[in-house]
Amino acid sequence: MPIWPPLCESCTAMAGIEPLAVASGGTGTGNEFPNGEMRILGLIGDPVSQVRAPAPMTHRLRHAGLNAALIPLHVPAVVLPLAFGCLKLIRNLDGLVITVPHKIPMAELVDHCSERARLVGAINVARREADSSWSGDILDGVGFVRGLTQSGFNPEGQSAFVTGAGGAGCAVAAELATAGASVRVFDVSSDRASALATRLSRAGYPVTAADAPDPRGFSLVVNATPLGMRADDPLPLDPALLSPEMLVADVVMKPRVTSFLEQARAQGCEIQLGEAVMLYQLDAQMEFFKTSLVAGATAVR
Amino acid sequence: MPIWPPLCESCTAMAGIEPLAVASGGTGTGNEFPNGEMRILGLIGDPVSQVRAPAPMTHRLRHAGLNAALIPLHVPAVVLPLAFGCLKLIRNLDGLVITVPHKIPMAELVDHCSERARLVGAINVARREADSSWSGDILDGVGFVRGLTQSGFNPEGQSAFVTGAGGAGCAVAAELATAGASVRVFDVSSDRASALATRLSRAGYPVTAADAPDPRGFSLVVNATPLGMRADDPLPLDPALLSPEMLVADVVMKPRVTSFLEQARAQGCEIQLGEAVMLYQLDAQMEFFKTSLVAGATAVR
Repeated sequence: MPIWPPLCESCTAMAGIEPLAVASGGTGTGNEFPNGEMRILGLIGDPVSQVRAPAPMTHRLRHAGLNAALIPLHVPAVVLPLAFGCLKLIRNLDGLVITVPHKIPMAELVDHCSERARLVGAINVARREADSSWSGDILDGVGFVRGLTQSGFNPEGQSAFVTGAGGAGCAVAAELATAGASVRVFDVSSDRASALATRLSRAGYPVTAADAPDPRGFSLVVNATPLGMRADDPLPLDPALLSPEMLVADVVMKPRVTSFLEQARAQGCEIQLGEAVMLYQLDAQMEFFKTSLVAGATAVR
Repeated sequence: MPIWPPLCESCTAMAGIEPLAVASGGTGTGNEFPNGEMRILGLIGDPVSQVRAPAPMTHRLRHAGLNAALIPLHVPAVVLPLAFGCLKLIRNLDGLVITVPHKIPMAELVDHCSERARLVGAINVARREADSSWSGDILDGVGFVRGLTQSGFNPEGQSAFVTGAGGAGCAVAAELATAGASVRVFDVSSDRASALATRLSRAGYPVTAADAPDPRGFSLVVNATPLGMRADDPLPLDPALLSPEMLVADVVMKPRVTSFLEQARAQGCEIQLGEAVMLYQLDAQMEFFKTSLVAGATAVR
């Protein structure tokens, strides 16, 4: 008796992508995707439709032999505390990737934050620990700096000019400083730039505040403001002040190549796209989540 | 600058399986899987690791041009009301598939039940309606009967003997009767069999209760008890009473071929596996969820 119409070739590929050495042992259903034994990482944001991490992160997880997936969950900002309380109850959900606008409130909702996350005042990853508590970290700066080093730019001993002293600017500045760069931060609100510089330098990071958006003399120039997301945004700084020996980076992901980066390229600069922050942080996310995913898969048996 | 190491062939396949005519329009990210624009159906159970529907259901959704996936969520029984309340808040979650032990309590938690679900007292699918209310239905009997008709057995005018008067027995009996069969139900608790027969016959279904597990003279014999899940379970009825002209079906999915079905096959009977209930209900689930998924994808824009 035919109990199942044959799947087309692409569906067969989807169902059994490749044999997995599932960490938890596994009954073979791990080869199907999605499957009942799969561990879940939720990607929470409001909205969530713009996120790009689910496919590349899920590939990496499966390549690492983890029967897991990163699944977007649109959690409205107004219900975040309630939703997080309930997501913690879902037993096959071992962690969360967190995007706007949940990064700052989630830092208050988890049980523990890394030192780096406390400094930034935000988290973008959270996981269930062995004692069922949840801990958070912020890996945006890590992704940003890994992007630089992967393309051959070692921040050690370099000078970096960062415009924008919000969450992204803070994460980038702290990680650049950790990697050995001296950092100067500008913000249209000079109070905000000073506050960031004070906070980071008190924590031991060589970060100072700039009075003007003048990147001349720096080897790395970073736009860490949201300017560039809209077509009619002004540029974060005057591109005439850029010169070919500078590496110019953006944290804006959409458009992929911002007007600022186009202008930088026109000045002869090397550039780093905003998506590097996400793409180069996937390995760090893997490291962050791995123990929780393996523990979750083991506990279910 | 290389911003992304090339994916292996299977990952490329996973990322871009095939062009989708995403109902909502779509920016192209729908071709990646999973992706941020994807609509979610949750499969809730306690446990959930044994479920097999996520891969075939997700294939069907994507084949139908819907950027959606069925994702297993292990919701502990004790927190079901709270968890359902919160899952309703997740804006890209448009529906739920429900498995043991949530089928009966979920019938109380949704806002509306189909007539069939009220009769069975359980649901196995729930969806968000246009007015944000949630409605439920039970499609197990539908899957069971579609399995029969697909393999050439038309229930109309047939006589069916069903052993087991629980949720599965009730769903199967009601759907067989709807399809034109006369149904006789046996249960080790004769009160339970009588109660089911009374309930279904009051609703207009030709269902009666049997005093003994004697299927002789029936054209269809169904095990709707859980007997057969464990290796040391007794058989639901004496296989010596089966004869080659009977079609013998089981609702137990694990093992795939139960001892009862093996015995039936040894008697020369055609058989239907328990998995048919799940596999042949996928199209009915598609029909049930489609409107909600399309409305959800449209509303997000």
